[in-house]
Amino acid sequence: MQTRPQRPEKPRFSPRETEGGPVWLWGTHAVMAALANPARRFHTLLATENAAQKLSGGPVTPQIVTAKEIDQRLPPGAVHQGVAVKADPLEEANLEDVIEAGATRIAVLDQVSDPHNMGAIFRSAAAFGFTGLVLQTRNAPPVTGVVAKSAAGAIETVAEIRAVNIARALEVLGEAGFHTVGLAGESTRPLDLALKGAAKVAIVLGAEGPGLRPAVAKACAELARIPISAQMESLNVSNAAAIAFYEANRSGFPAA
Amino acid sequence: MQTRPQRPEKPRFSPRETEGGPVWLWGTHAVMAALANPARRFHTLLATENAAQKLSGGPVTPQIVTAKEIDQRLPPGAVHQGVAVKADPLEEANLEDVIEAGATRIAVLDQVSDPHNMGAIFRSAAAFGFTGLVLQTRNAPPVTGVVAKSAAGAIETVAEIRAVNIARALEVLGEAGFHTVGLAGESTRPLDLALKGAAKVAIVLGAEGPGLRPAVAKACAELARIPISAQMESLNVSNAAAIAFYEANRSGFPAA
Repeated sequence: MQTRPQRPEKPRFSPRETEGGPVWLWGTHAVMAALANPARRFHTLLATENAAQKLSGGPVTPQIVTAKEIDQRLPPGAVHQGVAVKADPLEEANLEDVIEAGATRIAVLDQVSDPHNMGAIFRSAAAFGFTGLVLQTRNAPPVTGVVAKSAAGAIETVAEIRAVNIARALEVLGEAGFHTVGLAGESTRPLDLALKGAAKVAIVLGAEGPGLRPAVAKACAELARIPISAQMESLNVSNAAAIAFYEANRSGFPAA
Repeated sequence: MQTRPQRPEKPRFSPRETEGGPVWLWGTHAVMAALANPARRFHTLLATENAAQKLSGGPVTPQIVTAKEIDQRLPPGAVHQGVAVKADPLEEANLEDVIEAGATRIAVLDQVSDPHNMGAIFRSAAAFGFTGLVLQTRNAPPVTGVVAKSAAGAIETVAEIRAVNIARALEVLGEAGFHTVGLAGESTRPLDLALKGAAKVAIVLGAEGPGLRPAVAKACAELARIPISAQMESLNVSNAAAIAFYEANRSGFPAA
């Protein structure tokens, strides 16, 4: 008789979270930015007495609780800084709509799945005028919780665009006049030259280790590398993204 | 009668770890780089059967174990990829020795304490030719475990320099001909102009939020900012470091 407990195939990311049920956001920057976003619908706002002072005048009256009570509502280890809000997730955006709204800088993530890195990439995107972030429908975590905390508010302003097929999204971007540049350590083309003079830019980043999948690399207008020492194989993916976003804006810096 | 259990004052970082006892390193890159470092002394090397294949011919014969057995020796949640090594920590370096060895790029961290960020900063330092990283004697975690994993091997090649007084270390660097540039969001001086033409550069980074402490900011030759959108207050500190290290090398890129 078979006694081993059945272990059902569990998807890596809870489908409930991706299907639009309310989610918790935590941390000062993430919560303040969510509260300032008129597109958000809120359910519960929890704050310690201290943290509540920063929230006065906002759209939702906080329930005053202890830090421990907030701990109990969030995943273990969540660094909430005394504030958490339960809100409906934001609606995903269409690539075509973001392009039509006048975007000139778009980031595309192929298989990047670490939520801290993804959050930091949202944050750098907002800092450097990248108004949309293309993620795969599958294989990328929902933009909530840890991603939102690491993004420090940037998920409220950078449009989340889900694409079933990343290569197809790159075609759409190319047809709309975007210069699509994939970061690839094996390329010999320096990033600054690849980006020079392009009015509309899409930066494409793959997962650390495997890098861009072949079909995605092929769909980029060109591949480029960040010039690093032969001693290191690669950079952390959020660090590589930050450098690429910075470089994409470099020609726009004040000449002083 | 008092029954509540006593909770002793616990230092944030275990003093045993900072006093030179052996430490665990884990993850493919971190362990492979440690094994390739002749300055390391090893105690135990654990590997799964799969991971052991990558280690053949190395200086230490691995004990073949299961992934679960490795889990049990490491902190919870450690992503070890089937390999972990117990080794003596590396000796800290003297700032003067690193300067004398011909360093032209040094990074200085003022109060950055997140181990993931610190590890990513080591990794970017190695990638961009920064051969020394100055940390405070107190208030910075030991360079082991999570830091080492995030550094992907870079702690073996970038010298760890501990300074009691960061402002004093900046004076020493200045006297040795280093242009000491502190990153500060409130500065109006763009980073690229601050770094232009300097043969020897020290980049100084403060903690996210508080930034550089006033005495440290004052000890820098100049303060500079990474030009970002007014929408965001700051970048993730490891992302800011990566951009600054990249920019410090930019004039050395092939002109193609």
